[in-house]
Amino acid sequence: MEVVSGTASLAVPPGSAAVVVKNLYLSCDPYMRGRMTEHETPSYVPDFVPGEVLVNHGVSKVVASGHPDFKVGDLVWGITGWEEYTLNPKPESLFKINHPEMPLSYYIGVLGMPGLTAYAGFFNVAKPKKGDYVFVSAASGAVGQIVGQLAKLTGCYVVGSAGSDEKVNLLKTKFGVDYAFNYKKEQDLNAALKRYFPEGIDIYFENVGGAMLDAVLLNMRVHGRIAVCGMISQYNLEQPEGVHNLFCLVSKRVRMEGFLVGDHYGEYRKVPQGGEDQIR
Amino acid sequence: MEVVSGTASLAVPPGSAAVVVKNLYLSCDPYMRGRMTEHETPSYVPDFVPGEVLVNHGVSKVVASGHPDFKVGDLVWGITGWEEYTLNPKPESLFKINHPEMPLSYYIGVLGMPGLTAYAGFFNVAKPKKGDYVFVSAASGAVGQIVGQLAKLTGCYVVGSAGSDEKVNLLKTKFGVDYAFNYKKEQDLNAALKRYFPEGIDIYFENVGGAMLDAVLLNMRVHGRIAVCGMISQYNLEQPEGVHNLFCLVSKRVRMEGFLVGDHYGEYRKVPQGGEDQIR
Repeated sequence: MEVVSGTASLAVPPGSAAVVVKNLYLSCDPYMRGRMTEHETPSYVPDFVPGEVLVNHGVSKVVASGHPDFKVGDLVWGITGWEEYTLNPKPESLFKINHPEMPLSYYIGVLGMPGLTAYAGFFNVAKPKKGDYVFVSAASGAVGQIVGQLAKLTGCYVVGSAGSDEKVNLLKTKFGVDYAFNYKKEQDLNAALKRYFPEGIDIYFENVGGAMLDAVLLNMRVHGRIAVCGMISQYNLEQPEGVHNLFCLVSKRVRMEGFLVGDHYGEYRKVPQGGEDQIR
Repeated sequence: MEVVSGTASLAVPPGSAAVVVKNLYLSCDPYMRGRMTEHETPSYVPDFVPGEVLVNHGVSKVVASGHPDFKVGDLVWGITGWEEYTLNPKPESLFKINHPEMPLSYYIGVLGMPGLTAYAGFFNVAKPKKGDYVFVSAASGAVGQIVGQLAKLTGCYVVGSAGSDEKVNLLKTKFGVDYAFNYKKEQDLNAALKRYFPEGIDIYFENVGGAMLDAVLLNMRVHGRIAVCGMISQYNLEQPEGVHNLFCLVSKRVRMEGFLVGDHYGEYRKVPQGGEDQIR
């Protein structure tokens, strides 16, 4: 990555429906890892092009507008550039921020893409019921920490895993899960899961893949659900690890379903208040 | 396996609600392979006990009955013993045969467990739409051959794989799929699937697991569905093979769901005519 200086025009081209925004907060999200790889067949998001400005979710303020729905001073969140000012030719893809009294950084967190990912994956894909046994990997991550809290609010038993004692402590003291453990300190992930889930797991919110998924499969309950959000343990490997216990999908009649938050944005756009009312 | 001679009493114990049946047809199904393994933790069906009579689906005639719903001469199908006569203490689990004019052997095939497995897995789990691209592995097997025909009846494009040219020929000439191939003759399963599914696969009816599943994952379409019926390529291995391409579940938002026909028997019992009317 390289920082490049340049000049920006704070005006939209005459007659265009573009906006120019000043970027206030930029997010760095795990899915960007995939965009840094050159894919032979196109992935679900385009690869980054060397030499072009990186893009990802951010919070911005409109400083020039040729679009009737956006006026100077509007606050927005959505995909923007890793630069001070961005010319966005299609501002319809941005979300208006209707509650500027909230800390604006929340719109790259709990009220932005990570929050919607957690919400969509937990409620729309995993379909929880009160009393369900829920396991979240990468549970202190931007998405995982929200899943854990949504699960507690739903009346579930929640265990999270993370990769450092500091993160485990955060999970226990701040994010309110029932139990948390450092997977790096476990000799046997299957035994660890059996310790926390003697009755088995109803919902696994999958962020890591690989060996953890294999151990989870052995511990799923009948008619359990695995919402597959990501598999970050695999992204830097030459070849992904093999998962061996998929027959458990049959013997326990488990549903394993991948999702992308982008498929759920339409639903979010129909809720004018977004998730603001649910923030405690 | 050992054949043992003995004597049988063709009467039910006084006061019991048991039946004695004469077994007319016995089925040998792939899931029995699992029951021949000693499981440390119980599987979804009990392990066979050495020295006891093997049991599986069969067609039988009632020859003695203490149960008000079953009378001598009734024809039934369901779990029975690999023996000439079976004493069944819980005949409620048997299905009555209301169409004895059909060949009775159909009740261990298209009208029995394999047919219901195909029906439940295809319609209840895979949820097909007209025009869907459907791939069936072990497509000439008891279940696979029915899935292919149900898919054709639904207006889908159907390709099946099998392990011999004889089976492939049967698929093409008798079972009416669009294309069939011998997976043992393919150097590269991914390339084979790309050849038959240039647009990708909407529904994979999974009977084999392992390398085929890995190749299918690379070729699924967005919002595709994998109905996992079995993974027969894995049952004789010390350790199941690893499946590497599960991230495709996320990038293509694929649902992969295991099922057991037993969960769907209740629904079948509600249909007095069973599937007889659908047989061509």
